[in-house]
Amino acid sequence: MRQAVDILRFETRRQGLVEITGEVSAWTARQGMANGLLTLYCRHTSASLLIQENAAPEVRADLEAFFERLAPEDPTLYAHDDEGPDDMPAHIRAALTPTHLCVPLIDRRLTLGAWQGVYLFEHRRRPHVREVALHLQGE
Amino acid sequence: MRQAVDILRFETRRQGLVEITGEVSAWTARQGMANGLLTLYCRHTSASLLIQENAAPEVRADLEAFFERLAPEDPTLYAHDDEGPDDMPAHIRAALTPTHLCVPLIDRRLTLGAWQGVYLFEHRRRPHVREVALHLQGE
Amino acid sequence: MRQAVDILRFETRRQGLVEITGEVSAWTARQGMANGLLTLYCRHTSASLLIQENAAPEVRADLEAFFERLAPEDPTLYAHDDEGPDDMPAHIRAALTPTHLCVPLIDRRLTLGAWQGVYLFEHRRRPHVREVALHLQGE
Repeated sequence: MRQAVDILRFETRRQGLVEITGEVSAWTARQGMANGLLTLYCRHTSASLLIQENAAPEVRADLEAFFERLAPEDPTLYAHDDEGPDDMPAHIRAALTPTHLCVPLIDRRLTLGAWQGVYLFEHRRRPHVREVALHLQGE
Repeated sequence: MRQAVDILRFETRRQGLVEITGEVSAWTARQGMANGLLTLYCRHTSASLLIQENAAPEVRADLEAFFERLAPEDPTLYAHDDEGPDDMPAHIRAALTPTHLCVPLIDRRLTLGAWQGVYLFEHRRRPHVREVALHLQGE
Repeated sequence: MRQAVDILRFETRRQGLVEITGEVSAWTARQGMANGLLTLYCRHTSASLLIQENAAPEVRADLEAFFERLAPEDPTLYAHDDEGPDDMPAHIRAALTPTHLCVPLIDRRLTLGAWQGVYLFEHRRRPHVREVALHLQGE
């Protein structure tokens, strides 16, 4: 068994889900392993990762709207607002969704289901550069 | 170090938590490793995985009721309803609970706590066959 | 590649986030690996783990307050109260936050972002001793 590590950077332009399945699959394929375990790790506390439906766009819009209702931009709710009204809701939404993902690799394919995509979930309004660390082990 | 991979299938009959601790422990034991890391990965976006209390059944009923209140079957809340009113709530509940679980293996035992069970969390009303990919590495 | 396993114990005194970044980083450093994957696993269903902001203390207070509103100590909401009114809210809050964390190790450093800390999230009011299993693989 061996391992590969890397850090990928993604630019986000607004709040919401950014699909990164293509970049992640391509990086994994380049490591040339047949079976193993891929781990993605988001190095931020106001962005996160998510496996979600990759077909109907309404699913992503509904999901984003759900998190806006659950942790609203309401200054009366939070003491922390160093970086504006979207600061604390971003931390809460990041706490409720994964900081890391693990996906097994079997027979040279990530075991993503037919309708699963890998997403970076940006919780801040302004554009950001987000770093995702990757670790793949296998053979 | 070596690794083992597999895909297990589970039939679900209704919404809620289905305990799979027995199947998962048995599969792990068959790989004959003493120490390592087990990863379970759910290949769906309307079902998920969860480590939860395995003693009092009321805990599971209360937990299911909580998610029904948090992401209710209310068509006025969602644009997406391709597969019925339980479609979008299922995606939301799956986003709020793990798509994958990792459990260390130490001295031939998964390090599950005394009250922890491994559950498949079905978020759709109709019966489904759900696939869980397994990856175990260790020695 | 090789692996190391251990179980660390942490005392909690009240509900809330307890930072364990120092203990986790020190344990990892002692294993002497340059690259790999660290997994932390919480052996409880009324405590969990979380990567969160390690700078502004208001973030942690706001986060704790959010979970108190989301899963309140309201006996009318739950059937399960074997251990008191904080029992079932603890299980729900544990279900909404990670039971395990994975963090890649690159060039002898955990890939935690500049503002990320590792926290044990105690959901019960009374003091507890909590066990966290650790698994590190790499070389």
